[in-house]
Amino acid sequence: MRVGVLGGGQLARMLALEGIPLGHRFTVLEGAPDPPAGVASTVVAAAYDDPDGLAAVAAAADVVTYEFENVPAGSAAYLAARLPALPPPGALQVAQDRLAEKRMFCELGIPTAPFHPVDGPEDVDEAVAVTGLPAVIKTRRLGYDGKGQVVARSRGEVEAAVERLGAGLIAESFVAFDKELSVLAAAGREGGRAFYPLTENHHREGILRVSYAPAPGLTPSLQSEAERLAGLVLDRLDYVGVLAIELFEVGGRLLANEMAPRVHNSGHWTLDGADASQFENHIRAVTGMPLATPRVPGPAAMVNIIGELPDPGAVAAIPGAHLHLYDKAPRPGRKIGHINVTGPDEATVMRTVARVWELLPGAGELPRATGW
Amino acid sequence: MRVGVLGGGQLARMLALEGIPLGHRFTVLEGAPDPPAGVASTVVAAAYDDPDGLAAVAAAADVVTYEFENVPAGSAAYLAARLPALPPPGALQVAQDRLAEKRMFCELGIPTAPFHPVDGPEDVDEAVAVTGLPAVIKTRRLGYDGKGQVVARSRGEVEAAVERLGAGLIAESFVAFDKELSVLAAAGREGGRAFYPLTENHHREGILRVSYAPAPGLTPSLQSEAERLAGLVLDRLDYVGVLAIELFEVGGRLLANEMAPRVHNSGHWTLDGADASQFENHIRAVTGMPLATPRVPGPAAMVNIIGELPDPGAVAAIPGAHLHLYDKAPRPGRKIGHINVTGPDEATVMRTVARVWELLPGAGELPRATGW
Repeated sequence: MRVGVLGGGQLARMLALEGIPLGHRFTVLEGAPDPPAGVASTVVAAAYDDPDGLAAVAAAADVVTYEFENVPAGSAAYLAARLPALPPPGALQVAQDRLAEKRMFCELGIPTAPFHPVDGPEDVDEAVAVTGLPAVIKTRRLGYDGKGQVVARSRGEVEAAVERLGAGLIAESFVAFDKELSVLAAAGREGGRAFYPLTENHHREGILRVSYAPAPGLTPSLQSEAERLAGLVLDRLDYVGVLAIELFEVGGRLLANEMAPRVHNSGHWTLDGADASQFENHIRAVTGMPLATPRVPGPAAMVNIIGELPDPGAVAAIPGAHLHLYDKAPRPGRKIGHINVTGPDEATVMRTVARVWELLPGAGELPRATGW
Repeated sequence: MRVGVLGGGQLARMLALEGIPLGHRFTVLEGAPDPPAGVASTVVAAAYDDPDGLAAVAAAADVVTYEFENVPAGSAAYLAARLPALPPPGALQVAQDRLAEKRMFCELGIPTAPFHPVDGPEDVDEAVAVTGLPAVIKTRRLGYDGKGQVVARSRGEVEAAVERLGAGLIAESFVAFDKELSVLAAAGREGGRAFYPLTENHHREGILRVSYAPAPGLTPSLQSEAERLAGLVLDRLDYVGVLAIELFEVGGRLLANEMAPRVHNSGHWTLDGADASQFENHIRAVTGMPLATPRVPGPAAMVNIIGELPDPGAVAAIPGAHLHLYDKAPRPGRKIGHINVTGPDEATVMRTVARVWELLPGAGELPRATGW
């Protein structure tokens, strides 16, 4: 099948690398020069809302998908009118707006932290009454990697954040979580479902640094609760493809934080740690192939390469370390690759992660798995 | 690094797919239209001995390698004079000539079946005296997938075979082997070595059908003997890259049959059955990265797709089956893809192979692993 992808970054690159062996061919729409996906796809060089670009992708593809949720609504509508555009545009719409997302979670009975919309100083009192303090003030749209959000510890800080971030905000209770987890779920065109084991994630400055999977200490009941919650979202959105939901674990309970209607950084470990990756399952889903029920034979971890490249040879010399570079120019705070770690047991994986971490320029202290 | 590959078939395709995550980019030289590697590389469309084509590859690459051993000597020499061309041209030369190959094995003390060169009817008596009957008569050059060889059961059949195949032949004793095995070895530019567990191979009509790995019943002593023999060849040829040696096991003893100075069909299982594939290790080797010591966490198998495509959806629906298509037009006897099988234990893998086999049009009886 001919698969079109809006966006030509690392997610599109890995979708293509994993989809090519299934017999598919890829065309990406990407305005930035020399995009990461270019090595494994045909590039239509245009903006995501360029009519000629969209027409070219529609003509070159049998199905179209996305590597990011902030697809312009008009582009999604244009494509969906011409060919299967998956996940469905409705899922993108919800995921583009943190408020719509949180309201959907609520309606589905999926626990979240208390939240309240904020459109200006006049909403601060009511919001703080709902969220308490500290509160997290976020833009409803276009935030990523910690951008567009502020933790406010006092009413004054809330007001300052609202002043700074403008209208179209959401205030949420600050969650003193025990762990950050994520669940990756997939839904096929013909209705099949697949789930990966919960992943434990460690962020710093709002950017994912390290993931461990299956999440240390994961119990079957927590896994099935996560799958149940994810299943509710898949149902509600008539979803097709891979969906990630970021969760907080608080006192053994799961709270939904946010979702991504696409393959997700916290699932990159599946390239080496599962017998079918999130990228393969996303492509299986959108092309109408049966999903793979992933087998995860042992523990795995993922370490993001952010800002600066470690010596690739030194990484390659570490047994169990798997290098995945994106062909992106290094720049502070930019994700330019990741290193997956696999091994026969948790202790070995943890030791290997520590060796990998040593090679990352200026990485600071290693966020260790809780319990490995 | 920029990697050039002579040949744009499925081996180059898989080299590129596995080398791109390491940060490399690929250019292939291939005269056939729409080559399998084209989805993941820049294609220089020219014959393997086309001066402009060779110059274009040399200009586009920092290192060049091969997906087949029958590289024209002039092409290898041209490239080696301009950039690192690995494995070294000397290894290609030996591998291009079954007689030179067998003589090298002999000189290194690597057991082979008795053999004798045959250049015409006048050599038949002496050859048969050496090989006995039945004998296998092979062209010294350009044979593959059973082409250019005949099993002769009588002196008359030997004469007929020599008549038919012409000059430049080799006669070998027919080996009543217990098993066909292969060993995959890798040598790095800086001297490192890596070995995969022996693989059990099943051919039909001279074409590999199924591989099982690690070879059922493999003992540490047989593995280390195979590694010792392969190491002798790597040393002798100042080898860099992946090398495959096909072996016969006869009464617990290994005989070398032939070698391939490249990634090899019997190593395709490593894409899903090892934590670093033969393709990754070949690219690591020729680009000067440290080799990965492959970890093989469980049993694996590889089933070739020959001539006709099974329903990809039906294959994808089988847990533990991993589809690898080559984007080649189906044609009788042509390898157009393979399916790797992994699983938690040998019995599960064997059952999965049997399910996969059922989907192959006209595949005949399944060659089962000895002992799974």
